[in-house]
Amino acid sequence: MAEYQNDLILRTIKGEKTERYPVWLMRQAGRILPEYRAVRASLSGFKELVETPERAAEVTIQPVDILGVDAAIIFSDILVIPEAMGLPYQMIEKKGPWFENTIKSVEDLKTISDQIDVADKLGYVSEAIKITKKELNGRVPLIGFCGAPWTIFCYMTEGEGSKTFSKAKSQLFANPEMAHQLLDMITNVTIKYLKLQIKAGADIIQVFDSWSGILGPAEYSEFGMKYVSRICEAINEVPVTVFAKGAYYAREELAKLDCQTIGIDWNMDIAESRKIIGADKTLQGNLDPCVLYSDFKTIEMKTKNLLNSFGNQRHIANLGHGVYPDTDPEKVKCFIETVKEYAKN
Amino acid sequence: MAEYQNDLILRTIKGEKTERYPVWLMRQAGRILPEYRAVRASLSGFKELVETPERAAEVTIQPVDILGVDAAIIFSDILVIPEAMGLPYQMIEKKGPWFENTIKSVEDLKTISDQIDVADKLGYVSEAIKITKKELNGRVPLIGFCGAPWTIFCYMTEGEGSKTFSKAKSQLFANPEMAHQLLDMITNVTIKYLKLQIKAGADIIQVFDSWSGILGPAEYSEFGMKYVSRICEAINEVPVTVFAKGAYYAREELAKLDCQTIGIDWNMDIAESRKIIGADKTLQGNLDPCVLYSDFKTIEMKTKNLLNSFGNQRHIANLGHGVYPDTDPEKVKCFIETVKEYAKN
Repeated sequence: MAEYQNDLILRTIKGEKTERYPVWLMRQAGRILPEYRAVRASLSGFKELVETPERAAEVTIQPVDILGVDAAIIFSDILVIPEAMGLPYQMIEKKGPWFENTIKSVEDLKTISDQIDVADKLGYVSEAIKITKKELNGRVPLIGFCGAPWTIFCYMTEGEGSKTFSKAKSQLFANPEMAHQLLDMITNVTIKYLKLQIKAGADIIQVFDSWSGILGPAEYSEFGMKYVSRICEAINEVPVTVFAKGAYYAREELAKLDCQTIGIDWNMDIAESRKIIGADKTLQGNLDPCVLYSDFKTIEMKTKNLLNSFGNQRHIANLGHGVYPDTDPEKVKCFIETVKEYAKN
Repeated sequence: MAEYQNDLILRTIKGEKTERYPVWLMRQAGRILPEYRAVRASLSGFKELVETPERAAEVTIQPVDILGVDAAIIFSDILVIPEAMGLPYQMIEKKGPWFENTIKSVEDLKTISDQIDVADKLGYVSEAIKITKKELNGRVPLIGFCGAPWTIFCYMTEGEGSKTFSKAKSQLFANPEMAHQLLDMITNVTIKYLKLQIKAGADIIQVFDSWSGILGPAEYSEFGMKYVSRICEAINEVPVTVFAKGAYYAREELAKLDCQTIGIDWNMDIAESRKIIGADKTLQGNLDPCVLYSDFKTIEMKTKNLLNSFGNQRHIANLGHGVYPDTDPEKVKCFIETVKEYAKN
């Protein structure tokens, strides 16, 4: 018996010739499905769901059953890392994450720690992964994930979401020493956390650098890429995907990372990205999530355009960003079905 | 007597050889100066300041007196356009703009109009320009401005600021016909409004496309550039600057616009932008506004690096985005002085 009934995404990541492109959606677990909202409504809030392994596993598997995606991604949150380090957050309905305390100085670093037992602090994530793997029973591989250190840094210093993250960015310029110390601490914990996820059964790791695009090239190289690179070097057990949203200027550098797959947002042209990144990496993306607000015919047409642009190379079909909460699941299915029915030459 | 005591920016825009690079800052009027906050505190709020010509002129001139910039930019708001069309907004402290009504359908377009007398509806802006011009008395040129149609569309459909503007974007996909009709209406009013500003004395026009970066290349071409292009073609009286923030993928298209200057954000490399855009346009930008959180020595160093990258061509020194409200005015002066003292070869 093969380990997986469907290992298309793993073969694509390895660069093998495959019968079709694999497909999944960022944020597929949660948000759009009524079945997810039913689970969510039975609990006190988002964080209880993240911290309750049985329910997290349940919503992780929903898109495999309901949407037919080629991979599951564990339902969790990138902000479990600051919380495990000693900086708790709340998830405020319709507003997003909020930290009562933030890191503003080298002195503040003493209030948090990277010398933590991740198996203890984040055991609920590894438990959710174990349950998911058991229940998936080899149907599709499971993706584990983390936020990139720069993106985690953004929340730990800004304290909440922001359009500019100017408070977070200001630390890079006003307080570069503190910034590097904090980024180093986040990286240390993240590596331990990813190894925990892999031990529990994660088959692929994705690193989300959601806020890379607000840094300029020099700052991203110094404060972003450096730490993503350390993560890639530390994780050899399973393939790694790096999604640096908005960092179009860094694609040449991203191509040099010790990882297998690069995420592409919808602003980045596929052919241009392939040319910059080369043939040795799998590319993942990049349909604009707003295309799923179109009618079915347009979704089909734009999805086919995307697949045509892949040029029969190493590609995973996905959106260029997380699916938006008010997207009709039938439109998502249309995207997925179009990918599945598209025959590679 | 020459028309201007300092016409450096106008000569730079024309592509003439100049003794040094001109410098000003986006959002220089308002936000950072204590002298601005004193004026602001004497009024009921942001909108009263925008709508009171004497006071708008006063805060427009402050950065010329206090910071020594080479151009003034009229203190106003891009959202005067939707308001003039019949869609009023409030400016909520620490939150930003908020529209009680938004445009969601072709039907909703009947509630607004592009057949308006802009001289009547927006007379307070032309009055502010006239007073500013008189009080500037030729010290430096005055920049007038507007939001690009796509950016104005974002607020009229989303109703408030957003990280993704997914409601606004969804209209482009779900309702393209309405989108084009609304963009056309905004464009019609904007052109009349810019001509009013020029008649009142604006020496340069800047078109701010603050949200171009959230569209992919195909959508920006169809829903963004098309209308910016119409504005450029309609405005021949004075030079036009187009700043399409985040639309790095559109630089080749931007180079074809019938305008004189292209704004560059801090993500865009200067040398690469020059190569893409060519020698026939003036480039404006692009220091990361967060650099102004650094110490004086670093600001001086990073400003000089920027000026070195200009390679003695047609450049206006500016930030790559509006100056952030909590920036120390002394740091802003350091940036300005460094530009002024830098001798072009």
